[in-house]
Amino acid sequence: MTHAPHPLTLHPDRLFPSDPTQRDIARRLHAEVTGLPIVSPHGHTDPAWFAINAPFANATELLLVPDHYVFRKLYSQGVDLDALGIPRADGSRAEVDPRDAWRLFAERWTLFRGTPSSMWLDHVFHDVFGLRQRLSAATADDYYDTITAALQTPAFRPRALFERFNIEVIATTESPLDPLTHHATIRESGWSGRVLTAYRPDPVIDPEHEQFPDALRQFGALTGEDVFDWTGYLRAHRQRRAFFAAHGATSTDHGHPSCATADLSDADARRLFDTVVRGAATPAEAELFRAQMLTEMAKMSLDDGLVMQIHPGCFRNHNRDLFARYGRDKGADIPLRTDYVHALKPLLDRVGNEPGFTLIVFTLDESTYARELAPLAGHYPCLFLGPAWWFHDAPEGMWRFREQTLASAGFYNTVGFNDDTRAFLSIPARHDVARRVDCAFLAKLVAEHRIDEDEATEVAIDLAYRLPKRAYRL
Amino acid sequence: MTHAPHPLTLHPDRLFPSDPTQRDIARRLHAEVTGLPIVSPHGHTDPAWFAINAPFANATELLLVPDHYVFRKLYSQGVDLDALGIPRADGSRAEVDPRDAWRLFAERWTLFRGTPSSMWLDHVFHDVFGLRQRLSAATADDYYDTITAALQTPAFRPRALFERFNIEVIATTESPLDPLTHHATIRESGWSGRVLTAYRPDPVIDPEHEQFPDALRQFGALTGEDVFDWTGYLRAHRQRRAFFAAHGATSTDHGHPSCATADLSDADARRLFDTVVRGAATPAEAELFRAQMLTEMAKMSLDDGLVMQIHPGCFRNHNRDLFARYGRDKGADIPLRTDYVHALKPLLDRVGNEPGFTLIVFTLDESTYARELAPLAGHYPCLFLGPAWWFHDAPEGMWRFREQTLASAGFYNTVGFNDDTRAFLSIPARHDVARRVDCAFLAKLVAEHRIDEDEATEVAIDLAYRLPKRAYRL
Amino acid sequence: MTHAPHPLTLHPDRLFPSDPTQRDIARRLHAEVTGLPIVSPHGHTDPAWFAINAPFANATELLLVPDHYVFRKLYSQGVDLDALGIPRADGSRAEVDPRDAWRLFAERWTLFRGTPSSMWLDHVFHDVFGLRQRLSAATADDYYDTITAALQTPAFRPRALFERFNIEVIATTESPLDPLTHHATIRESGWSGRVLTAYRPDPVIDPEHEQFPDALRQFGALTGEDVFDWTGYLRAHRQRRAFFAAHGATSTDHGHPSCATADLSDADARRLFDTVVRGAATPAEAELFRAQMLTEMAKMSLDDGLVMQIHPGCFRNHNRDLFARYGRDKGADIPLRTDYVHALKPLLDRVGNEPGFTLIVFTLDESTYARELAPLAGHYPCLFLGPAWWFHDAPEGMWRFREQTLASAGFYNTVGFNDDTRAFLSIPARHDVARRVDCAFLAKLVAEHRIDEDEATEVAIDLAYRLPKRAYRL
Repeated sequence: MTHAPHPLTLHPDRLFPSDPTQRDIARRLHAEVTGLPIVSPHGHTDPAWFAINAPFANATELLLVPDHYVFRKLYSQGVDLDALGIPRADGSRAEVDPRDAWRLFAERWTLFRGTPSSMWLDHVFHDVFGLRQRLSAATADDYYDTITAALQTPAFRPRALFERFNIEVIATTESPLDPLTHHATIRESGWSGRVLTAYRPDPVIDPEHEQFPDALRQFGALTGEDVFDWTGYLRAHRQRRAFFAAHGATSTDHGHPSCATADLSDADARRLFDTVVRGAATPAEAELFRAQMLTEMAKMSLDDGLVMQIHPGCFRNHNRDLFARYGRDKGADIPLRTDYVHALKPLLDRVGNEPGFTLIVFTLDESTYARELAPLAGHYPCLFLGPAWWFHDAPEGMWRFREQTLASAGFYNTVGFNDDTRAFLSIPARHDVARRVDCAFLAKLVAEHRIDEDEATEVAIDLAYRLPKRAYRL
Repeated sequence: MTHAPHPLTLHPDRLFPSDPTQRDIARRLHAEVTGLPIVSPHGHTDPAWFAINAPFANATELLLVPDHYVFRKLYSQGVDLDALGIPRADGSRAEVDPRDAWRLFAERWTLFRGTPSSMWLDHVFHDVFGLRQRLSAATADDYYDTITAALQTPAFRPRALFERFNIEVIATTESPLDPLTHHATIRESGWSGRVLTAYRPDPVIDPEHEQFPDALRQFGALTGEDVFDWTGYLRAHRQRRAFFAAHGATSTDHGHPSCATADLSDADARRLFDTVVRGAATPAEAELFRAQMLTEMAKMSLDDGLVMQIHPGCFRNHNRDLFARYGRDKGADIPLRTDYVHALKPLLDRVGNEPGFTLIVFTLDESTYARELAPLAGHYPCLFLGPAWWFHDAPEGMWRFREQTLASAGFYNTVGFNDDTRAFLSIPARHDVARRVDCAFLAKLVAEHRIDEDEATEVAIDLAYRLPKRAYRL
Repeated sequence: MTHAPHPLTLHPDRLFPSDPTQRDIARRLHAEVTGLPIVSPHGHTDPAWFAINAPFANATELLLVPDHYVFRKLYSQGVDLDALGIPRADGSRAEVDPRDAWRLFAERWTLFRGTPSSMWLDHVFHDVFGLRQRLSAATADDYYDTITAALQTPAFRPRALFERFNIEVIATTESPLDPLTHHATIRESGWSGRVLTAYRPDPVIDPEHEQFPDALRQFGALTGEDVFDWTGYLRAHRQRRAFFAAHGATSTDHGHPSCATADLSDADARRLFDTVVRGAATPAEAELFRAQMLTEMAKMSLDDGLVMQIHPGCFRNHNRDLFARYGRDKGADIPLRTDYVHALKPLLDRVGNEPGFTLIVFTLDESTYARELAPLAGHYPCLFLGPAWWFHDAPEGMWRFREQTLASAGFYNTVGFNDDTRAFLSIPARHDVARRVDCAFLAKLVAEHRIDEDEATEVAIDLAYRLPKRAYRL
């Protein structure tokens, strides 16, 4: 459907309640937080951007191809991924003019009405690129040209955007096999931007990861440890964690299918590891090994002080044929029902009361917010709740997170917002949405006389800035 | 409790937010959709009504006896089903004056406060029958007389009501064994009303259905196929699907206990079918057979273009003694926790990326909206979400559906509203509620500056009219 | 963080919507219920308070030490339970000045922002003790002194508070082994306060309860029955239930890990019981025994008319080391996913349609409200829903309860509010919150023209007063 161009605006009251009492409070709260620097303790931006500081190529390469929120919806409505120029599993790409791909997207922009992608992208279009007409078939070329031209200018290089976005600190996530060259380059460059890494060891921990056998070999080569022996394998982790910490890491991150943890005896763990390295692990043994490794990681955190994050509960690569053709991360990951009460107990029995240990847990199963996660975080000193994540980082999902965790976890057993994105340009938009939703939520509490406005102001600042810094030790 | 009569009104702003900003927007959106024809692509009205066009008998027979939403609540508060004249399993009925049954209901009308039944029935009372005092013990007889008298007049015959209700098209559901005589009669009568059938093969697919052995025999007799052989059985389905399509069907519907699907080899499917027809299937084998048949139905849809619907997740006939005495559909069906991520994978692996295939999935387990269904529908090109269903078709349930599916499925991976009712007179009320709730939901998005009002207007029209027509190929 | 003192107020519109239309309605509804007496049919106050009527010791002993909502949050933020003077499992307590413990709490009062504890305690501080500055490090001593001094005066003795709180009737819960001396004392004292007991047989029913073997022996000694024989064991229950009923009990209460019920043959039940009393029950057999006993209790209710309550779905004592050190009820109980559809069926098959039987079911798994509990309660004549419970008794949880049960259970298959607390002073605050939330919920329905205000007024009174009296036969 082609539309005549409509104005594109970012209303100053967006995401605030329309009730005048609540809106006025929300405005005042937001005025206190809108200028705070961005703290982004967990995400997936590419450190090469900040190390090399090369210009982004064009609108399609920057905003469409890497954003699985966007192309999964286009795919769901019958658009072929090849037509968008999405890379295939074998590294090849269909020969597609990026402008044509952009047009396919622009013509279907109405599909995104009301979704977080539309909110984030409108913010980028409006604030980053100065566009003032709504995206549509009619404005597709204008968008493409405006964005692509801007990207060639110095003001749109990664470091300039980083500064313009008022980012105080950002963390990326890397595999233990990563030499962290880009992080070293950034540090040595003298540039003031603070870009940290985080230790994400899934490929060398998950026996069912397709890269596991190769990754393990490299892990050994890199560390000089005998990683096919349980003791050497754990030593290799300790060594790499120290290396990551030396490159600024303050946290580890673990993306497991479930939140299962285990606390095996050393002999049992060693036997299990032997099975795993022989490639002989059953699915149940693979799950048990991942579970045991979460507890091993927690024990190492007691020593090296890295904050631990668990991002569980996703069925990865659900679409068999799409995975075969295009590989991972193509919008076919689907959340799963997830248990925390039984799953976390072995780890918590082991380290749950240890002073100085911090475990930040995320979920894709909102039914656990009020039932499991908030009560757990409201009791265990180590446990904190990560923000509404991935499929739930829309205003509705953020609201449900607060609404369902407040009673048992309060505000102070949560860690504020983190954006968890690889879409660099959307980072200000995402933090803006989160701050506005938190201010709207607090405004309702104030308007209903549940907290005073001076308290709400402090909470708003805590959620936007202080809590993530404290939780992630930044 | 007896009340003095109170006025019965249908407020023009009902179901709109009371916040003036949102209410004004909702009014404007609603003005654009309130006059749209009703598209009812899934429901359970009786085609005999429209074929024979006989008058309905009286208030009790029309509004009370067939409405399990109503009599289940009366039963839950101690009213005997016999006293309401509900038919028993053996076909007999207690000798009850329908006026007495109506009085039992009227005296307990306060029990329905706030429920969807009260909203639908008040709409029927007010708009269809012109009643202007609230139902109560005091007005019971007046209601009974007014309604029963009206039903004897030509304006209240089924076809007249169909036209008065501005129904553009309605679909019923029939068993494969149904000769579709009524549909043929309607078509041959020259009447302009569009009444379609839909293929609902549960009795010949579910080995645990009490009619299965008989139904299978009739299936063979009707089709002339050897339905005790796997190949003949599938051929019989293809034949009846074609027969249904010739009588206007554009869809099939499957009411399974779970959403399990399977994709067995032909040899395994054949072996399983042999077990089933021998009556030797275990519960697990019965489940596997239903699962396999969903995939078979999907494969047939690739050929004949029928849209496929799955309505899973209900524990039927939960009340053992009531089932023995009164049979099916007596208000004792209870929703179950339902998995979709693993359950749908075999079918989706087989046909999930096929162009032209449409699978509309419903749920009674709202915890799957944001976690499973919206992400699945937001990725697979074949998948669309049916509206809030059965226990969830109240304003709160409809709101939760939108609120929890918007982020990942948007509006456009849903199919708009369908009423799924056998309560013919309530159809305008049900569509009215759905349109009002969608307008209220959109008004909030506009008032909070998340979409513009021109976009909301288009979405409102899409949800009320265009999306169901498109999804069901009407 | 230390704050300058801020005023402490209880706003007359607290918990009402800020939308003027809804707020005005809520005010009018609330005016009709705010003066109604408190009916507290389920809770855990100590009957000794009312029997002995001794003064409470000090602020810390009254408000901090017994309130696991409060000290679990302090623990979750690193405060040692010893530093608060929480009793240990062996009965000992750290030597702590209660004033120091109070200061630790007061300094961390900001952690409770937005939580129900802050709302309840502010109500107690303001209305019971007349405090007018917010709790903080700066006001800690003033709070401690004011509260502790007041407690020494006659007006703050338990009976005086009972009368001041306008409590019409309160129920406590006791083990079958309890001699009910305090209840007898109260009754014989001539005091007008109505304090009932309730039969809570978990320690003599749950084979996995750490007190089970001892409790069973005492059960036999107390009743003179051979409780190691199935027939004698059941007779002992009947005898104690009669004894409890004679001391005012109108209900029984069952706190099981799940809602599983069973309906074994007498021979199977006897065999299972023999295994249990031999101490040889597996976890599955223990679960089956608890399940069978729920049905036995239901059958006894048919005879003696005691209303039955099930409080299922909590993983008790989740923190292993804390349990070893401090014992039960230390804020480490975590809700579990809970099934009702299959679990309740054996009991319902047996007694679900029996006139005069009342079963009130609670849940800690909100995902069951709309899916399972409301449909079950909306059908079975015996079933009623208990209010939002424990982790869910905050305004948000109460709202979700209404919002998710209204469609299928209406208002009238629920039992109104009960506070379920051992925090005696918070009882008026808790009922106040519940009444306000219900009025706010009803005000929205009125403002959106779904029910008329006269109906909402009746419902508000029913929920606050009439329904609990009716459901609990008070």
